[in-house]
Amino acid sequence: MSEDNAAADPAVPFSLAIDAMGGDNAPEIVLGGLERAADRHPGCRFLLVGDEEVLRVALMRFPKAAKICTVRHAPGLVSMEMKPTAALRLRDSSLRVAIDAVARGEAGGVVSAGNSGAMLALAKIVLKTLPGISRPALAAVNPSARGDVVMLDLGANISCDTRNLVEFAVMGEAFAKAVLGLPAPRIGLLNVGVEELKGDERLRLAADALRDSPLAAQFHGFVEGHDITAGTTDVVVTDGFTGNVALKTGEGALKLASLLLRRVFRTNLLTRLGYLLVRPGLERMREWIDPRRYNGAVLVGLNGIVVKSHGGADAEGFAAAIDVAMDAVTHGINEKIRARLGQIATLTLSSDETQGAAVPADV
Amino acid sequence: MSEDNAAADPAVPFSLAIDAMGGDNAPEIVLGGLERAADRHPGCRFLLVGDEEVLRVALMRFPKAAKICTVRHAPGLVSMEMKPTAALRLRDSSLRVAIDAVARGEAGGVVSAGNSGAMLALAKIVLKTLPGISRPALAAVNPSARGDVVMLDLGANISCDTRNLVEFAVMGEAFAKAVLGLPAPRIGLLNVGVEELKGDERLRLAADALRDSPLAAQFHGFVEGHDITAGTTDVVVTDGFTGNVALKTGEGALKLASLLLRRVFRTNLLTRLGYLLVRPGLERMREWIDPRRYNGAVLVGLNGIVVKSHGGADAEGFAAAIDVAMDAVTHGINEKIRARLGQIATLTLSSDETQGAAVPADV
Repeated sequence: MSEDNAAADPAVPFSLAIDAMGGDNAPEIVLGGLERAADRHPGCRFLLVGDEEVLRVALMRFPKAAKICTVRHAPGLVSMEMKPTAALRLRDSSLRVAIDAVARGEAGGVVSAGNSGAMLALAKIVLKTLPGISRPALAAVNPSARGDVVMLDLGANISCDTRNLVEFAVMGEAFAKAVLGLPAPRIGLLNVGVEELKGDERLRLAADALRDSPLAAQFHGFVEGHDITAGTTDVVVTDGFTGNVALKTGEGALKLASLLLRRVFRTNLLTRLGYLLVRPGLERMREWIDPRRYNGAVLVGLNGIVVKSHGGADAEGFAAAIDVAMDAVTHGINEKIRARLGQIATLTLSSDETQGAAVPADV
Repeated sequence: MSEDNAAADPAVPFSLAIDAMGGDNAPEIVLGGLERAADRHPGCRFLLVGDEEVLRVALMRFPKAAKICTVRHAPGLVSMEMKPTAALRLRDSSLRVAIDAVARGEAGGVVSAGNSGAMLALAKIVLKTLPGISRPALAAVNPSARGDVVMLDLGANISCDTRNLVEFAVMGEAFAKAVLGLPAPRIGLLNVGVEELKGDERLRLAADALRDSPLAAQFHGFVEGHDITAGTTDVVVTDGFTGNVALKTGEGALKLASLLLRRVFRTNLLTRLGYLLVRPGLERMREWIDPRRYNGAVLVGLNGIVVKSHGGADAEGFAAAIDVAMDAVTHGINEKIRARLGQIATLTLSSDETQGAAVPADV
């Protein structure tokens, strides 16, 4: 175990705090996820936050989860529809109490399948950004032809300036090292073409800053939309608007392919026989691109690990989100960010939206 | 034939002007495309612009193309690497002479597989925007689960304001009517969530303006990345940066699916047999999502139809770009834009980048 192993730190009693009440099918899905986590992360303890009475009863059906969890009562509930401002006022919600546990150093991180906006707002206010980071970003792993790729920001920041993008590169590198285990992840900056002149001033300045930074050797330069699934780089950096659209567009396209494929196999008796012959391989392929496997977006850049599970995730999906959080905590993603920022003496970049002459895209 | 049939207008001698020298394999690919166009568009004439000597020789191998084309000599060449500013100075290039023919009313539109940046710059300067349109946009058709979907802007404008987005909706509607033949296309505005509060001020103002316009009944509201391939709306409106990334991300994801599928079928003898059983259906599927079928992005909003073919397109792809241009000319896309703009008395929208409070995405 390395020095930055927070899970082994005796001062941190719980690996993670878990919001038991967030998501479409809480707490069953959450407890089902913990049941799987008990096998995958032996020796770890989790702080399970929610309505104590409900959880005591529910835990009877999840004996392995019951063994690794300590329940903390939090009667309040942040509903999926609640506005962030309302969620901020609710001090006894399961989400708030779980995040508070991280702030107090009782847990290395938090996982919730609840209200995204509320989670982002609460986490930012309670945990605060790491020194040297101006804004946290949502990062997650996506499938590519050459292995897993980290993309960020996936939607925490609608507009980003040059400094934000450079910080995202630092955080994306740390994520790829901690969660994907890559020694020197390659970083790409998403643009509408790969030539240096493409895009706007904001992107060109971010590229210049990265070429001038300790990340220079790992900086690939600009990448385009198709490079995400091609796996041209291990990390793809972009603003939260573009990242969110790209994430959902890619998922949608894979869904379209799967729909068309289903039609092909259902054409007639021969194609149905063909399906039977390739079924094992198809199932492996489906599993591999299964969004559940990629569940768990990390809000990186805060004092503590914050992982958002999809609200509609099943137990397997929630278990994947726990895995991501465990990797981020155990392999010290925040220590890696701090170390890298320490090498970058000062990010001498304006925090203004510097939109200069824009060069159109290739089509 | 309708009134707006420019091809039937005796004052316009050529349906289209064709840049014979643009693209990776010019002029062979271009002439191969015209050979196919001769069958698909009987009675139409094309102005073929390029090096006369080269074209005379090459046309001997494309007898059908030779019959429908009039060659116009243009010795200059805009290379794929040439900067737009350099291309603008080259008055005898095949690209320039072809666009000039449209400006003079000799042809209804122009098709080129050449340098994108040069084409956009030249077309804007020579043809100028339609009255009431502030900036042209690149529009093209994409596959979806519910039929073809028009997306714009695909990269002509890196940053767009509210007014641009509203104009793109008007142009997208006209495109869907003319090229897809839809009587009342449904329009969506690409965002990071469907709730009214999502995204930035620019998007919220554009949505408000569309709800207040004659397009209100066809305006669906915000759509997300996965809605593009789901076919939630017939038209997807976005800025050129996001549109370019979304287009390429979707293409990349379909390519990944096809790569994974190939691996599945190649696993062993049984899977190879399975492939043989489903091959006809797979080939139809591949054809259906084939980027060649969707080749031909229209730069809408100019006085004349301008179609960009992919530089690496083959003859079938170039023929598809000619088809798009013919549809746009024959079904009067510009007349449809003018009619719609006539209904919108004044677009009382600021042309400034009005970036207000941004609301983060759902993930």
